[in-house]
Amino acid sequence: MNIKAVQKICYGMYVISSKKDDKINGQIANTLFQITSDPPTVAVSINKQNLTHEYITTSKTFTASIISKEAPMNFIGNWGFKSGRDIDKFKDANFRAGKVTGVPIVLDYATGYLECEVLSSTDVGTHTIFIGKVVDCEVLSDAEPMTYSYYRQIKGGKSPKTAPTYVKEESTAVGATGDKYKCTVCGYIYDPQNGDPDSGIKAGTKFEDLPDTWVCPVCGAPKSEFEKEG
Amino acid sequence: MNIKAVQKICYGMYVISSKKDDKINGQIANTLFQITSDPPTVAVSINKQNLTHEYITTSKTFTASIISKEAPMNFIGNWGFKSGRDIDKFKDANFRAGKVTGVPIVLDYATGYLECEVLSSTDVGTHTIFIGKVVDCEVLSDAEPMTYSYYRQIKGGKSPKTAPTYVKEESTAVGATGDKYKCTVCGYIYDPQNGDPDSGIKAGTKFEDLPDTWVCPVCGAPKSEFEKEG
Repeated sequence: MNIKAVQKICYGMYVISSKKDDKINGQIANTLFQITSDPPTVAVSINKQNLTHEYITTSKTFTASIISKEAPMNFIGNWGFKSGRDIDKFKDANFRAGKVTGVPIVLDYATGYLECEVLSSTDVGTHTIFIGKVVDCEVLSDAEPMTYSYYRQIKGGKSPKTAPTYVKEESTAVGATGDKYKCTVCGYIYDPQNGDPDSGIKAGTKFEDLPDTWVCPVCGAPKSEFEKEG
Repeated sequence: MNIKAVQKICYGMYVISSKKDDKINGQIANTLFQITSDPPTVAVSINKQNLTHEYITTSKTFTASIISKEAPMNFIGNWGFKSGRDIDKFKDANFRAGKVTGVPIVLDYATGYLECEVLSSTDVGTHTIFIGKVVDCEVLSDAEPMTYSYYRQIKGGKSPKTAPTYVKEESTAVGATGDKYKCTVCGYIYDPQNGDPDSGIKAGTKFEDLPDTWVCPVCGAPKSEFEKEG
């Protein structure tokens, strides 16, 4: 049994948003799929620990913004590695209210969106699968959707511990241009051979030479939250 | 509401197989996703009309072969556009029995596979979502998995009418090198500008000039099942 086989399943990347009374929240999910074409219904799997799970359960509504390849790592960090219990994720976001449900739709780096009403839900242990009827949807751009494998391979991204696709990472080797450093919050590895182009850090920049204002491109943690790998 | 937004959801491509007593069958599905990481569970959505649905319901077991980009269109045609009620899909296939369940695992063009025992199922109208515990899985090659968008965009593939992602196609225009012809069985369009490289037909070959032995690369229908587009 080689669990790496499960990592070959293909996914997109989505911001799933919901509301509860006058509160709103959203989170990254990669497990969205279409169930039936007529009427159009989709399923999404959400961890019970997440605030968005509580909101979807209460309001029986959610929206899904389909993230494009152009989304930078700090966008994923904000929506995927932080909790709406700690911060207001919508603070600096562009969004609008869904026509039918009033649930916020994140517009930043969205190539399209779906607005859904929950028809039913299934308990699957740590997660709940919500089945939603698509009550509105729009294409916002021609940008290619980001796939989960693109996020992992090209962008070097990780899964948070509450994601279905979370896998414990093994330590990586020391690079020729300096040591790798790991973010203790989200597991992101700063590799000096790659730098951090999204934040303007050139390949070849040692961790020690990063400016003090630099933060983890995935979750926004400061340099002090990093520890040396190896 | 623009239903094309739903087409931006990302999927892989899988052969889902099952058994009933001594009978075996398999079919293409693109709606497989991971639900929980510990224990590893996955969900798959299967149309109630399909023979594989009956087999999974009876045996409470299934396997998923993760299809690589290298799979030709006639592979998709055999597993995705034909019914096990009419033909033996395993006739010319390489496969082996799963270690735990005995369910066949299709090995052709598979970059990995999962073997699953059904924990629960959810009725979602035309389809059932089966939740399966992964009891065995292996990586078979380094080949990249085929995504559904690759299948549609690069390979020119379609969905059968029982797929969640089926969309009625509009007619396409007439090409400069001859007319396009549409397969009335599966909806595949033969475009002379592209030819059919998987079957050794060069770009620029008119439909009328195709050999009489040529068959639809998606579903295997003969030339007589094609009609002129436009």
